[in-house]
Amino acid sequence: MLAVKSPTLVLDLEICKRNIQAMAAKSRRHNIFFRPHFKTHQSAAVAEWFREQGTSAITVSSVSMATYFADHGWNDITIAFPANLPEAEEINQLAARINLNLLIESEDTAQYFADHLTAGCGFFIKIDTGYHRTGIDPAHLPIIDQILKAATASKLQFKGFLTHSGHTYHASSRQELEQTSSSAAEKLFRLKKHYSRQYPDLKLSIGDTPSCSQLPIPDGIDEIRPGNFVFYDVMQFALGSCTLRDIAVALVCPVVALHHNRMQAVIYGGAVHLSKESTLLPPDPQAIFGLAVRWNGNKWDSSELLGKVSNLSQEHGIISLTQAGCNLKPGDLVAILPVHSCLTAHLMRRYFTPEGSIIGTMNG
Amino acid sequence: MLAVKSPTLVLDLEICKRNIQAMAAKSRRHNIFFRPHFKTHQSAAVAEWFREQGTSAITVSSVSMATYFADHGWNDITIAFPANLPEAEEINQLAARINLNLLIESEDTAQYFADHLTAGCGFFIKIDTGYHRTGIDPAHLPIIDQILKAATASKLQFKGFLTHSGHTYHASSRQELEQTSSSAAEKLFRLKKHYSRQYPDLKLSIGDTPSCSQLPIPDGIDEIRPGNFVFYDVMQFALGSCTLRDIAVALVCPVVALHHNRMQAVIYGGAVHLSKESTLLPPDPQAIFGLAVRWNGNKWDSSELLGKVSNLSQEHGIISLTQAGCNLKPGDLVAILPVHSCLTAHLMRRYFTPEGSIIGTMNG
Repeated sequence: MLAVKSPTLVLDLEICKRNIQAMAAKSRRHNIFFRPHFKTHQSAAVAEWFREQGTSAITVSSVSMATYFADHGWNDITIAFPANLPEAEEINQLAARINLNLLIESEDTAQYFADHLTAGCGFFIKIDTGYHRTGIDPAHLPIIDQILKAATASKLQFKGFLTHSGHTYHASSRQELEQTSSSAAEKLFRLKKHYSRQYPDLKLSIGDTPSCSQLPIPDGIDEIRPGNFVFYDVMQFALGSCTLRDIAVALVCPVVALHHNRMQAVIYGGAVHLSKESTLLPPDPQAIFGLAVRWNGNKWDSSELLGKVSNLSQEHGIISLTQAGCNLKPGDLVAILPVHSCLTAHLMRRYFTPEGSIIGTMNG
Repeated sequence: MLAVKSPTLVLDLEICKRNIQAMAAKSRRHNIFFRPHFKTHQSAAVAEWFREQGTSAITVSSVSMATYFADHGWNDITIAFPANLPEAEEINQLAARINLNLLIESEDTAQYFADHLTAGCGFFIKIDTGYHRTGIDPAHLPIIDQILKAATASKLQFKGFLTHSGHTYHASSRQELEQTSSSAAEKLFRLKKHYSRQYPDLKLSIGDTPSCSQLPIPDGIDEIRPGNFVFYDVMQFALGSCTLRDIAVALVCPVVALHHNRMQAVIYGGAVHLSKESTLLPPDPQAIFGLAVRWNGNKWDSSELLGKVSNLSQEHGIISLTQAGCNLKPGDLVAILPVHSCLTAHLMRRYFTPEGSIIGTMNG
């Protein structure tokens, strides 16, 4: 049994495996290649549960994460982050031993890797389908042409177009999500049409969890790369991607103080455990940092809300209690469903099962 | 020389030691006991620079942090966090070997430790002077009396009243800061007056960096516990506690993409490096996550602003560039002054000197 003395990230294996199975089944049903993003869990042990579902290729967000998973037997990896020039040496080492794909979005970067790669390496061109974080405006064909030209006769091999429609996180309705998602797909289809004569095998890759969870995969898309769905979280719940019962991780925290006059509890569990990521959960106009639910010693009960994490400092969390939370006492344990499981998992570095086993990650 | 390939937290020793020296000198000048908070740096090596300035007693925010510093020769430690019942065993081990002080703010907690402590242990009663995070309303003398009664004839020894005026972080002017700070002090003075016949040695302890940096220490306060000043950060700059030249840490990050049409750079450096903490920097109405300045290979130049970190995802940072930043290219390095150095330091787990030496922390 797990003895919780300080904030402890608990992983519910059953929920997690169910989430993996559901997304793998969906991609099989749509006959689409499944390349899940492993930045959420960062764990070779969790990765094996994907392998059991037939996953053979993955997505990561850094060279160090690619190296970690390559060391654990994954040999087909896309680093879905703009290729980082100072890491050319590490990229060469990886490209020499696995099938590696980079992301490129400028002629400068394409030329640099064309000049410096010593082993064959695939690359996707990152397309900005409206999120405006990274990527090339799909109307700017000359930039795409310059990248393709720079890559010619080098170790770089063009694989296709990739996008992350992060603006689906801002969709305020199912209809808006559908519009955002289908408009992104349309932009990719036009690119495919334009370049498919020259590159008949080029692939289209999309990735966000809200679209992949809530919508059918558009015909014509070749690959999906969702990541967060493995655990889900309160943000995905707020977006309609999951129910609270689908959230596979919770931070179990001791209560250290009660303030009944303002219906608040203070927990040992703060920004260094949960992260400062917040989300809105309408109709509540205040951003929250997590949802507090009952911890039964070996399971959390997401049907009983004890409160909302309304504020965080470095080690403190403030819970605005519901009536059900008002009988808490110092020393009691509560489970916090995190707002952003990727950041919480990164901070906590390891998972515990309710039985007390440790599930490690690349960070510990 | 430091070779930066991925986000790297650089510590400027000269600035850091100057910050330590200034606060130590100020406490000597006011003849006040200096018990700096070590949660910001979490480093035994940085701690030694305090020892050189005469520091003998410290503050930490968790039992594990107290254990780490006790292992590094610190034997007078206050854990400035509500005493955590499930860690009673670890607290007993610490109390047996060092002078340990806990924080207590309820009769339940006082009774629990009165019943479970096996070694002598000091405690402060946490007073809420207006921040409303933790602590007892200073008008509620019956609760204080209950705690003192529960502690009687136990291993608990009453040391005094402690507050953290975190609401100074919300002061919008010097005048408001002065009012907040002096009103907090007044509340403590009244408590001291009330209890000093019974407890003639009781101490008053205050702690926030804005007050300790900007204001004279009020006569009658016995101890200060600021922490953040060791590094400062953009939030303290926004509050008027420091200049940009006093910030002692910067995250050096590679540029991975440029978007000149919207005057943005994308850096390898995101929420898992800087944290999602943001601050307002008037007159800019948008919250920012850091300030980008020139990195010269062995020093950052805080006089030349290249841009503001306007958005963060897990590994990406978006910099809204100034004109000076528009000549950046992929592969260039920039230095990011963090919004909240405590959280950035915790995430990065170690510091590098510009010469490439590693300065470790309790986490790595």
